[in-house]
Amino acid sequence: MLLEKNTKFLLFGDSVTDMNRKEQGEGLFEAIGVGYPADIQSFLATSYPDYNIRVINKGISGNTSRDLVKRFDTDVAPYKPENLLILIGINDVWRQFDTPLMTEEACTPEEYEANLEWIIDRSRDFVKQLILVTPYYIEENTSDRMRARMDEYSAIVRKLAEKHGAIFVDMQAAWVKLLKYYHSSYITWDRIHPNSQGALYMAKTILNRLDFDYNREI
Amino acid sequence: MLLEKNTKFLLFGDSVTDMNRKEQGEGLFEAIGVGYPADIQSFLATSYPDYNIRVINKGISGNTSRDLVKRFDTDVAPYKPENLLILIGINDVWRQFDTPLMTEEACTPEEYEANLEWIIDRSRDFVKQLILVTPYYIEENTSDRMRARMDEYSAIVRKLAEKHGAIFVDMQAAWVKLLKYYHSSYITWDRIHPNSQGALYMAKTILNRLDFDYNREI
Amino acid sequence: MLLEKNTKFLLFGDSVTDMNRKEQGEGLFEAIGVGYPADIQSFLATSYPDYNIRVINKGISGNTSRDLVKRFDTDVAPYKPENLLILIGINDVWRQFDTPLMTEEACTPEEYEANLEWIIDRSRDFVKQLILVTPYYIEENTSDRMRARMDEYSAIVRKLAEKHGAIFVDMQAAWVKLLKYYHSSYITWDRIHPNSQGALYMAKTILNRLDFDYNREI
Amino acid sequence: MLLEKNTKFLLFGDSVTDMNRKEQGEGLFEAIGVGYPADIQSFLATSYPDYNIRVINKGISGNTSRDLVKRFDTDVAPYKPENLLILIGINDVWRQFDTPLMTEEACTPEEYEANLEWIIDRSRDFVKQLILVTPYYIEENTSDRMRARMDEYSAIVRKLAEKHGAIFVDMQAAWVKLLKYYHSSYITWDRIHPNSQGALYMAKTILNRLDFDYNREI
Amino acid sequence: MLLEKNTKFLLFGDSVTDMNRKEQGEGLFEAIGVGYPADIQSFLATSYPDYNIRVINKGISGNTSRDLVKRFDTDVAPYKPENLLILIGINDVWRQFDTPLMTEEACTPEEYEANLEWIIDRSRDFVKQLILVTPYYIEENTSDRMRARMDEYSAIVRKLAEKHGAIFVDMQAAWVKLLKYYHSSYITWDRIHPNSQGALYMAKTILNRLDFDYNREI
Amino acid sequence: MLLEKNTKFLLFGDSVTDMNRKEQGEGLFEAIGVGYPADIQSFLATSYPDYNIRVINKGISGNTSRDLVKRFDTDVAPYKPENLLILIGINDVWRQFDTPLMTEEACTPEEYEANLEWIIDRSRDFVKQLILVTPYYIEENTSDRMRARMDEYSAIVRKLAEKHGAIFVDMQAAWVKLLKYYHSSYITWDRIHPNSQGALYMAKTILNRLDFDYNREI
Amino acid sequence: MLLEKNTKFLLFGDSVTDMNRKEQGEGLFEAIGVGYPADIQSFLATSYPDYNIRVINKGISGNTSRDLVKRFDTDVAPYKPENLLILIGINDVWRQFDTPLMTEEACTPEEYEANLEWIIDRSRDFVKQLILVTPYYIEENTSDRMRARMDEYSAIVRKLAEKHGAIFVDMQAAWVKLLKYYHSSYITWDRIHPNSQGALYMAKTILNRLDFDYNREI
Amino acid sequence: MLLEKNTKFLLFGDSVTDMNRKEQGEGLFEAIGVGYPADIQSFLATSYPDYNIRVINKGISGNTSRDLVKRFDTDVAPYKPENLLILIGINDVWRQFDTPLMTEEACTPEEYEANLEWIIDRSRDFVKQLILVTPYYIEENTSDRMRARMDEYSAIVRKLAEKHGAIFVDMQAAWVKLLKYYHSSYITWDRIHPNSQGALYMAKTILNRLDFDYNREI
Repeated sequence: MLLEKNTKFLLFGDSVTDMNRKEQGEGLFEAIGVGYPADIQSFLATSYPDYNIRVINKGISGNTSRDLVKRFDTDVAPYKPENLLILIGINDVWRQFDTPLMTEEACTPEEYEANLEWIIDRSRDFVKQLILVTPYYIEENTSDRMRARMDEYSAIVRKLAEKHGAIFVDMQAAWVKLLKYYHSSYITWDRIHPNSQGALYMAKTILNRLDFDYNREI
Repeated sequence: MLLEKNTKFLLFGDSVTDMNRKEQGEGLFEAIGVGYPADIQSFLATSYPDYNIRVINKGISGNTSRDLVKRFDTDVAPYKPENLLILIGINDVWRQFDTPLMTEEACTPEEYEANLEWIIDRSRDFVKQLILVTPYYIEENTSDRMRARMDEYSAIVRKLAEKHGAIFVDMQAAWVKLLKYYHSSYITWDRIHPNSQGALYMAKTILNRLDFDYNREI
Repeated sequence: MLLEKNTKFLLFGDSVTDMNRKEQGEGLFEAIGVGYPADIQSFLATSYPDYNIRVINKGISGNTSRDLVKRFDTDVAPYKPENLLILIGINDVWRQFDTPLMTEEACTPEEYEANLEWIIDRSRDFVKQLILVTPYYIEENTSDRMRARMDEYSAIVRKLAEKHGAIFVDMQAAWVKLLKYYHSSYITWDRIHPNSQGALYMAKTILNRLDFDYNREI
Repeated sequence: MLLEKNTKFLLFGDSVTDMNRKEQGEGLFEAIGVGYPADIQSFLATSYPDYNIRVINKGISGNTSRDLVKRFDTDVAPYKPENLLILIGINDVWRQFDTPLMTEEACTPEEYEANLEWIIDRSRDFVKQLILVTPYYIEENTSDRMRARMDEYSAIVRKLAEKHGAIFVDMQAAWVKLLKYYHSSYITWDRIHPNSQGALYMAKTILNRLDFDYNREI
Repeated sequence: MLLEKNTKFLLFGDSVTDMNRKEQGEGLFEAIGVGYPADIQSFLATSYPDYNIRVINKGISGNTSRDLVKRFDTDVAPYKPENLLILIGINDVWRQFDTPLMTEEACTPEEYEANLEWIIDRSRDFVKQLILVTPYYIEENTSDRMRARMDEYSAIVRKLAEKHGAIFVDMQAAWVKLLKYYHSSYITWDRIHPNSQGALYMAKTILNRLDFDYNREI
Repeated sequence: MLLEKNTKFLLFGDSVTDMNRKEQGEGLFEAIGVGYPADIQSFLATSYPDYNIRVINKGISGNTSRDLVKRFDTDVAPYKPENLLILIGINDVWRQFDTPLMTEEACTPEEYEANLEWIIDRSRDFVKQLILVTPYYIEENTSDRMRARMDEYSAIVRKLAEKHGAIFVDMQAAWVKLLKYYHSSYITWDRIHPNSQGALYMAKTILNRLDFDYNREI
Repeated sequence: MLLEKNTKFLLFGDSVTDMNRKEQGEGLFEAIGVGYPADIQSFLATSYPDYNIRVINKGISGNTSRDLVKRFDTDVAPYKPENLLILIGINDVWRQFDTPLMTEEACTPEEYEANLEWIIDRSRDFVKQLILVTPYYIEENTSDRMRARMDEYSAIVRKLAEKHGAIFVDMQAAWVKLLKYYHSSYITWDRIHPNSQGALYMAKTILNRLDFDYNREI
Repeated sequence: MLLEKNTKFLLFGDSVTDMNRKEQGEGLFEAIGVGYPADIQSFLATSYPDYNIRVINKGISGNTSRDLVKRFDTDVAPYKPENLLILIGINDVWRQFDTPLMTEEACTPEEYEANLEWIIDRSRDFVKQLILVTPYYIEENTSDRMRARMDEYSAIVRKLAEKHGAIFVDMQAAWVKLLKYYHSSYITWDRIHPNSQGALYMAKTILNRLDFDYNREI
């Protein structure tokens, strides 16, 4: 598996990552929340109990890439995580559609790219494994205006992953695959926030890219 | 206007009609709820104060056409409303997509049509103005599976409206019109339940079909 | 219509404007509240979707004209709204009757006029369309002491509207018109706060003065 | 004082009497509520501690005279109160104005009179002191439609008091007297439910008619 | 009556005065609480409506005389009340019995007297009518240790009232009078906090010392 | 110790026994409540772990001896407890003082004695160890009216204990002993319900009469 | 995989299965709860979306095998599930240790076996795949009294699985395996209820016995 | 008894001591919480009422020895308690097992010893009776990893007690004794927090070491 023993795995993102996590985002009382981070933690802890990988959830609901920049120094840097996953951009795009006149709420593709670059640059010193996940819209119709716009941001993530040699997780593509079988309303109410089925699916999609072995004997 | 003076106007439907109405669905303490029924009531009361039209909200969240049949005798018949609006079918379709394996929850087009016919037949004695509103999915892509399925049910409504000489309100078409300007996420989180903007728009769409005069002098 | 495309429309007032708005007074989760501002927003968004008019609710319960002066710099100026509606004065008068001995709570006509002048003066730089709405008491008896007193304040609003070329909305007169048909208890519990019927009526009264076209084809 | 020693004093009415009373309407934990019944109880208990008069609150919010008839057998008869105060009629009238189209909610003057007669007739066996209080509207303008209508009902109470030799309390007149000094908004938000000042005033108004001695030495 | 027209009447004390008052201790929404201050306010407002006496509740639960000294400058001085009632000392004594080992919580008679003197001295400039009320224990047995101790503090109040020409209200004596008829459990659960009967009795006891006329015609 | 191995110990009483017990009055989640029954249970379980004595709390707040008679068949008989403790009578007396006019709430000494006799008689078949505890008033002044009345009921308990050879616990005497050191307000707010100190003291008082050995080695 | 297409999979058990499921135990709003059933549902839905396996959670907290017998006819039979998983017995044992004196709460091994046999017998008509899971205690020390007792019940499950050709899941063994790496407090607070890590582990343990393919391409 | 008259007894610890204490940890409204401190207080107050020993609860949930060092100056020093009980270390150990990767949460034996020494050193000036209680794990199996680790910390407590002449309470040993009779689940859900039975047992274990006389006559 690509994650090494005795390392930290920090998940940096918005409400999809947050999912009711507590302040610290790890530890007792299900502080990691009920989204895909909890499932990643559970998979690692039960299939690789000898790896001692510490998972830390640092998602905050409603965040855009601009917010991640603002809280990088308090929420990421002090942990010096060897593995950093970034899943951001959904709100950068969503605000352009659900509050179109409050233009100060959203981020343009240009700002989005600059924000991501800034974070990648600042984390270079300690991050060995960078995992970039595309923002997504759980919608198969590529001419849906929000899906189309989201795809522009996904393309930026793909470009940056290549540029910086990061692991690239095409979450948008993963959802489209599942939508062959189900209508989006089976997985999500608003085409953004997955239910527990969707959360597990996200975790598996990410772990698959990390060569995770589900049948590993312990 | 097509609604006559001193008559009752009963709105029969699901959560889109319900919108937190209280038990009686009319009267004090905003018992009519906060959806399109409240707006219809407000328009009638303030533009046609001399008409004395009594608006009654009998929507219940989650209802399918099968549920309307079950509660017709307690929720509609005792009022003998001269004007009856029926907006049902969204859950008949939705359950086919959000709980596809619980097949007992949804209604097929055949049952849907039979249920509507049953209601229309039973209300013939007292209803003078029947208003049939199409179920809808606030989605412009007609190849979306749920939208496509919903269109089948809308077609049934149109057919029955013609057959029974009812006023036909194509709410699906109305949403599509508005979607030229906005992404659905501006109006609704789940492409079904409109926010207050959408509720007012629904009220206007219905009233327009009733030749309502917004500029009427009082 | 008198509001121009791509402008901001800020509503500045007391509890009648506030009506449970959230901090920002616009945007997601019905943050605009449930009063006439929500209805104005809904009318503009659905009849003039191509106009992109941003409605901002800045009402706060219990405010007098003195409070508006205090929070002008934080709540109005930063937005530089091209359209500003002011509906204030109800509490300036009410406190003279419901807490007559706490004289520090109310504002005299002199102070009221000065406060309004101050606001108008400060907003001159950015406001193109000023809309002044009379405070009101939903009471048809002009010899009711509170109604009589409120009329003095309404007269000031009328005077200032003329002096500054503002659009004048005589809300007191509008209520009196509706009271020909209904007793006040049909619209309001305390002769101040309208129910949802009254809120829609207020929105229509204001929009009528702005040459709003309800039947505009979109 | 007109109330005799070792008797029961039952107060029968609507929300003005109810005022958050508990089930039994007397006894521990302020079960008598916070309206005029509590003040009457307090006055009797502290000025006539040797009289042992048991005060029982049987008001229920929203009740009309029709409701009092319905619950006479469970709420009054079992106590066989020697003193019975009836204060009813406000909702009989109010519903004609705040829900004018729900005509089944209100009572006509004819029904009102019949209901009162029925109660008086049924209580003849045990009641020695009957106290009839007029319904009221805390409004001095006699041409207000609701005040005018309420006066018709008050006239019925006066007529019945004379016919049956009951003590007559003209609560409407008492309020008008107080309105010389205060605007109604000092005492009540809706011109019906008095605040604690108004509750004490009602208690005094009733006790004055019973020759209560406030300065009685204990 | 001893209170003059157009004056303020401030009540300074502990939980017996507090009784759920709101921050300001006067004005809308029953902010004066539900204890004797509310009753005094109600009596004054309804029997002397032409006097315009403003009643202000500044009681805080758990306060001792030491606390009153601490908050005199914020809670009393700014109002410059012409009439000041002080009812303090219950907690100065009670803490000696219910938390005997936490000696820092209570005040000795010496400190109590000094605190009262300090307050009287500081209020000399604006207070014309000083009303000193004895602390009390609703217990008739003078050899009860807490009653006996409370009597020492009452004696100090009496002494100071004489020294400073203040109106003296012997609330302890008033309770004893009522206890001829009732066991304390009829009026209070803990022999300190009166129920609504007791609160009215306290108000009457105070007003009697002010030559209040309950039968004054308005 | 007087309680035998492998027996049940049922505590039958009012709020002093109840103390927030759950439905079953024993078992998980502190269902036994927080009063003296919990302490008895804790003492038995930790000092006599080899005795397997099952403690069952069947107190209900507000109960009089009349209530115990009513629920004997459901709350006591089915358990056939070998050891039965009865602590009742406080409310039989209290209601004579805190709601003196609601005479139906209290029980006379005659009824009290009859009720106790009835319970003793009905429990004869299964009870081997009957423990009768006096009702009490945590007040040392024997001329306090409620204390004096309570003493009459205590005398009945003593008489019945002697007559039936039951273990007699003079809880009133125990409180008086403690009151040599503390004012009642250190132990109880209302002279009835002890705080946790008082509850432990009650448990010890009862266990002392059962020859409980606190220093027993386990 | 051993579960066939288009079948139902009902999970019958206690609090470990329940985990806050809603009434129906399946469908919208995470009604399946947050335990291992949710994870099984998520795995099936995302790895075998073409299988249409309907998962139904029928666990109820605190249940013993005796309770499952009682509710078999309402909670299992009507669904006629082709696949039935039974995980029961934890409370049959636990009550012997946490409420040892309330012997009516627990089930002996004999009753446990009989109850399981009864259920297996009654489900024969419709169940094709029976899955029997051992009760467990997340404790590696086999001489712990509760663990030892639980092992007796596990042995019964193993015996019945063999006798009836059911799939046998040795959950106790699975936990012991994980305890090589972690102390039980990492997975559970009470050695019974797993946290989300433990729930996922349970799901995987069960699915492994069903030849589930985690890497199946969809 | 070893505690002297007129002294303070401060209990310094973690959640086992805390048990819902209020801010001050002593005084009214059961501020001492519901754990062993409450029982110690109750025993002292009722068996040694003439001793005037003031018990102060300064436990805080989740604390390790490091936290005690941090709050010594605010929570202990200002009281200058003559008697100081320290029960700490459970979380120092527990965090090594329930959040093994968050190594910053736990304390090593070396730090634990240093922290305890620091506290003992700082309290030398005022403490006359130092009582050191071992941390514990309510588990009889000494090869349980957490029990074994806890024993290392207990040994440090024993060593320090000897070194400093403190009273040593071997709480671990006390639990083991009780576990001869009960499974741990009878006393505690998580093998750390005792129920009310366990709390009383802890209090007795401590008091026994202080030569407390349960049968002392008062």
